[in-house]
Amino acid sequence: MTTAQPRAQPPGTPADAARTLRSLRERMPLVHSITNLVVTNTTANALLAIGASPAMVEAAEEAAAFAAQADALVINLGTMTAERARGMRAAAASAQRSGTPWVMDPVAVGALGHRSEVAVALLAHRPQAIRGNASEILALEALSAAGAPRRVRAGRGVDSAHAAHAALDAARHLALRTGAVVTVSGAVDLVTDGARVIRVGNGHPMMTRVTGLGCTATALIGACLAVADPLAASVHGCVLVGLAGELAAERARGPGSLQMELLDALYRLDDATLLARALIED
Amino acid sequence: MTTAQPRAQPPGTPADAARTLRSLRERMPLVHSITNLVVTNTTANALLAIGASPAMVEAAEEAAAFAAQADALVINLGTMTAERARGMRAAAASAQRSGTPWVMDPVAVGALGHRSEVAVALLAHRPQAIRGNASEILALEALSAAGAPRRVRAGRGVDSAHAAHAALDAARHLALRTGAVVTVSGAVDLVTDGARVIRVGNGHPMMTRVTGLGCTATALIGACLAVADPLAASVHGCVLVGLAGELAAERARGPGSLQMELLDALYRLDDATLLARALIED
Amino acid sequence: MTTAQPRAQPPGTPADAARTLRSLRERMPLVHSITNLVVTNTTANALLAIGASPAMVEAAEEAAAFAAQADALVINLGTMTAERARGMRAAAASAQRSGTPWVMDPVAVGALGHRSEVAVALLAHRPQAIRGNASEILALEALSAAGAPRRVRAGRGVDSAHAAHAALDAARHLALRTGAVVTVSGAVDLVTDGARVIRVGNGHPMMTRVTGLGCTATALIGACLAVADPLAASVHGCVLVGLAGELAAERARGPGSLQMELLDALYRLDDATLLARALIED
Repeated sequence: MTTAQPRAQPPGTPADAARTLRSLRERMPLVHSITNLVVTNTTANALLAIGASPAMVEAAEEAAAFAAQADALVINLGTMTAERARGMRAAAASAQRSGTPWVMDPVAVGALGHRSEVAVALLAHRPQAIRGNASEILALEALSAAGAPRRVRAGRGVDSAHAAHAALDAARHLALRTGAVVTVSGAVDLVTDGARVIRVGNGHPMMTRVTGLGCTATALIGACLAVADPLAASVHGCVLVGLAGELAAERARGPGSLQMELLDALYRLDDATLLARALIED
Repeated sequence: MTTAQPRAQPPGTPADAARTLRSLRERMPLVHSITNLVVTNTTANALLAIGASPAMVEAAEEAAAFAAQADALVINLGTMTAERARGMRAAAASAQRSGTPWVMDPVAVGALGHRSEVAVALLAHRPQAIRGNASEILALEALSAAGAPRRVRAGRGVDSAHAAHAALDAARHLALRTGAVVTVSGAVDLVTDGARVIRVGNGHPMMTRVTGLGCTATALIGACLAVADPLAASVHGCVLVGLAGELAAERARGPGSLQMELLDALYRLDDATLLARALIED
Repeated sequence: MTTAQPRAQPPGTPADAARTLRSLRERMPLVHSITNLVVTNTTANALLAIGASPAMVEAAEEAAAFAAQADALVINLGTMTAERARGMRAAAASAQRSGTPWVMDPVAVGALGHRSEVAVALLAHRPQAIRGNASEILALEALSAAGAPRRVRAGRGVDSAHAAHAALDAARHLALRTGAVVTVSGAVDLVTDGARVIRVGNGHPMMTRVTGLGCTATALIGACLAVADPLAASVHGCVLVGLAGELAAERARGPGSLQMELLDALYRLDDATLLARALIED
């Protein structure tokens, strides 16, 4: 099903975030995810908790058809294999043809040669949004500027070696070159379409001790893409996961309970809490 | 090891369910699971919590030999790949030869062409039980009636587009055609061998906001197949997960804590609770 | 990056375990894991909770390069496929060349023909540590003694059919033959370099009802290999997971909450608790 591009929405206030969440719960978008083995379960649960309908379909034989039916597509490069890469490329191409909005999470790109090639190939299918940590965005920008796969300086593995603001220029260039809204996650998240830069201050330091909460942010951006334009979707996805993380941290004794409480918090998030606590600096 | 078919057991009272649970905990059956990437961890944990011994073996090189040794086999079509489909077919064929009882969960069948072919091929190996939501059972019945893979109307992704009772006739036909006991999960679960229809009323609406609890039901049916006949195993598997979900919902603040509490509840389930709260309508 | 072999450290007192934990949190080692589908998420979370930096990289195209950069490598044979076996062999060969210390977890070896072949091939790349249950260590010792893949008596699936002490001689022989420190998990864990035998008494019976806590022990041994010699790393990895399990069991109502509490406990473990409660018998 071809999805009409939602009209531009103001992204910059807590009320805007609350409106996106209401739309998301009314529409219950079908979110097609091809993600990594570490977070398959928690990604599906985060999407269900916020009110979306996740479907994990990764086989190349099925992914293209499914991406055309879905309301949004999430592609995450973690634990990539040659087989999974085939499914990603089929799904991204199909999303581009069908008008299904999609978001890319370039996990560990730059640190590993093979997935850098796949990332560059996927960019040709024009994601509406890209989210990564500073090292990943720096690496992806360099790769896309080079126009061809090459090795770039990058983080050690999946953790960022850079603070978010160090990647702001790269994020702007990447946004302008690809047409995607680019999000750099960090203590403060930076979201840019190449012109505007919006900052999201929600989150909690203990979130870095739970695996895959960056992937959860990407999945929530994906869900929001079904009901909001890419700039609003990216800002509001960051708000949802960051605020849920803050609320969870108030009750958690460590990263085990933080993960559990975060799912509960996504499920319980309401207008009043968003209006009182969303930290968006436009 | 060839498992002697357990003799027919009355399925229809709370006392029958309690007897199945006691047998399961005494025997600790080895349950071979080939399941999807979303629920591998939670399926194994649910089987351990109830008292079974799970083993996830999916490589075609190993799955056939293992299915012959196991006390029961669970095959779940979610996140299927060509590679995993090879393992499923090898395991199902081996289970049929060895007399290992097995249950099939046709996740998203009908919605996706490739897995519909695999589902029809697997039916030839005569599962003792099949469990799905209404859309999946409607689709599988149409596929099996057609005798050949074809596209049928189906749910959007993994969620049912139909209420359970809409699939009752399809479930009866599917049971008669395949010889399997067929379960349609829903607010009330329907279990039929083609003649009798037994209803299970346990469960809680918040369970639909946790990924893979249908897969957990299938896994528990699989464990029960090692100690009870297919009709009793299917009814009691639904009772176990539904009642654990109810108990969990009494303590949960959202879907994150519901998943955790459900595993605790499976572990703590006892005769008295089953006798007091199992909702079986024969 | 070639890691200089850490100098020999005394492994035998609670103070030694506390020193290893402090080193681990200061160094935050990058731990490359190729593990099974059941525990990918919980392994990453356990490594993050204790203070390490996990990275799950399994594609053969990427695994060799990554193992050379990592501070330690964990290879776990559960849910092995031909594809994943290729990644394991590439990673182990690279670790051997680069001096990256690595630990092997021979899940269900002996019970399944294919993974026995892979296990023997991996031993040629000289792991610094091996951890398994009694059945797995008995099977691996027999396989390595035979010098060639063959079928040996083994456990049913992933659970041990033997008590730990029954595998002590096999563990000693395996250590002498391979040069690895060998750990046999059980109610009391046995750790041997072929000469010394150190016993770790921490743990709780309910831990056997949570999937993959043996895999978690292996992952923590891997993390410790980055900061301690193999004997100390193996002993202290067992202490960390066993003590966290004990602390978790004091708060848990069942296996669902035990898994969550164990991650919290790893995160909260401190010197004082280790000094008071580590049970090491040298």
